[in-house]
Amino acid sequence: MRIRLEVEYDGTRYSGWQRQKNGRSIQQMLEKSVGRVTGTESAVHGSGRTDAGVHALAQVAHFDTESELAPERFASALNYYLPDDIRVIRSEAAPPDFHSRFDALGKTYVYTYRNHPQRSALHRGLSAPLQGDIDLEAMRRGAEYLLGEHDFASFCANAEGKDTVREIRQIGIERREPYIQIVITGSGFLHHMVRIIVGTLAMVGRGEILPEEIGRILEAKDRREAGPTAPAAGLLLKKVYYPEPVFA
Amino acid sequence: MRIRLEVEYDGTRYSGWQRQKNGRSIQQMLEKSVGRVTGTESAVHGSGRTDAGVHALAQVAHFDTESELAPERFASALNYYLPDDIRVIRSEAAPPDFHSRFDALGKTYVYTYRNHPQRSALHRGLSAPLQGDIDLEAMRRGAEYLLGEHDFASFCANAEGKDTVREIRQIGIERREPYIQIVITGSGFLHHMVRIIVGTLAMVGRGEILPEEIGRILEAKDRREAGPTAPAAGLLLKKVYYPEPVFA
Repeated sequence: MRIRLEVEYDGTRYSGWQRQKNGRSIQQMLEKSVGRVTGTESAVHGSGRTDAGVHALAQVAHFDTESELAPERFASALNYYLPDDIRVIRSEAAPPDFHSRFDALGKTYVYTYRNHPQRSALHRGLSAPLQGDIDLEAMRRGAEYLLGEHDFASFCANAEGKDTVREIRQIGIERREPYIQIVITGSGFLHHMVRIIVGTLAMVGRGEILPEEIGRILEAKDRREAGPTAPAAGLLLKKVYYPEPVFA
Repeated sequence: MRIRLEVEYDGTRYSGWQRQKNGRSIQQMLEKSVGRVTGTESAVHGSGRTDAGVHALAQVAHFDTESELAPERFASALNYYLPDDIRVIRSEAAPPDFHSRFDALGKTYVYTYRNHPQRSALHRGLSAPLQGDIDLEAMRRGAEYLLGEHDFASFCANAEGKDTVREIRQIGIERREPYIQIVITGSGFLHHMVRIIVGTLAMVGRGEILPEEIGRILEAKDRREAGPTAPAAGLLLKKVYYPEPVFA
């Protein structure tokens, strides 16, 4: 039986999604918990990696099990063994050929900047600081250059020899005092792509570069032309999209 | 010089606002930090107490100091010595007769129920669970009985011999998936008043009592007639209201 999971996590204390020799990963914690619940080791596959310190509201993952536990009961059973900064929000039976990574049509990420001189006590580690007067209209004009299908080599860490063409479908930039949120939906994302885009748009927001520069940076296909990689703490994987089941 | 503070805190690890012999209180942490920054002990007065485990987005407090530090610099200076679950969001000079408690005109509290079988990984400790189908319309009808000036003895812990008349100005109840939020604004609140109101409205939402029962409970002036005290974790002091300065 293949089980599909939706997993929420606060990435602050973890080395990222992916299993590692040294370091605590979200995937390892889930696999350990599956082992405790089912009595058997199973690989837990996610829709994609998230980096160290990056959060998820609904990462999608799957695993196979012979367990006779009702699929929807896995959420509570796994949570019993998981630390409180990783929660399985939903578990359900998936078709035997469902694959959380290969079937994913796209993803939405939310980046949260805190536009306030002091950090938050209530939402610790869930945003990155961005001080000063930020021009959201300029950021929105800059973001328009990124919409559609492009070679995002300038917005990718370690791009050498990889296919760096991706499609961005939507970028929304809103102020929710004292936060500024950047919501990006695309077909898929390269390593550090969202954080480099956000770090570059932040430069536009602060007036350090013009919105039109984004077009030039994109064309350069050179990581050195783009802005800094925004801090991991601000990034949240919000949603992974899948096609509707054919015979639902 | 009198300094006015706005303080955000996650109450999870604290015994409440008020200074205590045993237990870590928010007030103590602030007074300790003021002592470190100014070199002198000063009492920090808050707009009111919050109970153990209750949070604040903008608790207002004040203290007097001879320090020559610029008033708006106190926020960063105090935060340097505070734990990361208590943050001074703003500091400013206040008129010498400003008093955070006596001058307060009213307060807004937000209560957050999580209407989902699993807890949240990202916002740990900032809500209380409420399972099942919740009838928000019934809760809203029940809440109407509480609007205006009433004797809230039924919604007060340890009411004996106290003036239990208060005025509630507004109650809003909204669903923000997977949360249900109850926002209550009033002139002032008795001990546990918001949490007993919320616990009683939750019974209405679950269909355990009718909305009209709220009127009867209010008239009874007897704590035993109302519902349970909702858990502290769901409660947040959102705003304290003060009159505009006369010569601003």
